Amino acid sequence: MSMSMDTAPEKTQVQFNCAGTAVGKMRNELVVEMVKPFHESFEMATDEGAFHGGDASAPPPLALFVGGLTGCLMTQIRAFAKRLGVTLDDLKVETRVIWDWQKAGRVYETAPHSFEIDVLIDSPNAFEDTVALVKAAQKGCFLEQTLGQQNTIRHRVLRDGTYVDI
Amino acid sequence: MSMSMDTAPEKTQVQFNCAGTAVGKMRNELVVEMVKPFHESFEMATDEGAFHGGDASAPPPLALFVGGLTGCLMTQIRAFAKRLGVTLDDLKVETRVIWDWQKAGRVYETAPHSFEIDVLIDSPNAFEDTVALVKAAQKGCFLEQTLGQQNTIRHRVLRDGTYVDI
Repeated sequence: MSMSMDTAPEKTQVQFNCAGTAVGKMRNELVVEMVKPFHESFEMATDEGAFHGGDASAPPPLALFVGGLTGCLMTQIRAFAKRLGVTLDDLKVETRVIWDWQKAGRVYETAPHSFEIDVLIDSPNAFEDTVALVKAAQKGCFLEQTLGQQNTIRHRVLRDGTYVDI
Repeated sequence: MSMSMDTAPEKTQVQFNCAGTAVGKMRNELVVEMVKPFHESFEMATDEGAFHGGDASAPPPLALFVGGLTGCLMTQIRAFAKRLGVTLDDLKVETRVIWDWQKAGRVYETAPHSFEIDVLIDSPNAFEDTVALVKAAQKGCFLEQTLGQQNTIRHRVLRDGTYVDI
């Protein structure tokens, strides 16, 4: 996501909400809303393939995640190129994410294994300038910054009309 | 993503690749492929709204991320419910993610601020059983586990046909 630098304040917050509803076998229908600094709404869905007991009516959640990560860095590179005076004749990004998966009793557990992002820039500017651009984009990319630190997720479960922290 | 417990090995890896191409003003066209443990391919796109200099032809990257996170936990809750003997008459999940944003010279920097996930389960089982289900799903959710630790992303930039680590 890029924000207009000319109109934005020095500091602000960006908030996205998502309301998911389970339908069918494994399909989740999702309404995603940006609520800060202004409002936009998007509808999307996830599903699983037949192998996973789903109907393959939408991409799986991990596909949205890897697509979002890739798109976030690309958007930042393009937004910052103008700011840093780097001309982009072409931009391609190739991302590879690997997770470990192992059985744990009746269920299973997962862990991230590796993240690799290759950037292909076609530019008349010096190679060093394009590297500086990618490094600035990493700092501006919401998802790179999120993955680069340990995050705590607060979970609540609804009980008789009241949310209980778990 | 859930995997068939009956056919899967004790341990495996799950890999997703994404190839992104910048088109138009701010649109990114993305081919996302699961390459391990088997192959599936998905096409999607991100874009930005007019405020950000885009054409609003697709959701922004952060919407895919928040939708993927929500869908991942929901999928895991449903997959594990069968394993743990919890009946789900209805499942809804509400996610809120906030990032901090601030100017830094000609560009800007970002950082994650908070993650909150509310789970609404309609079940004839005891509340404690549904809580145990959600906790198991957190451990099985690839994206929750990814966000819960600090991740290093390896970046390379193509220079004259050879990738250079930056």
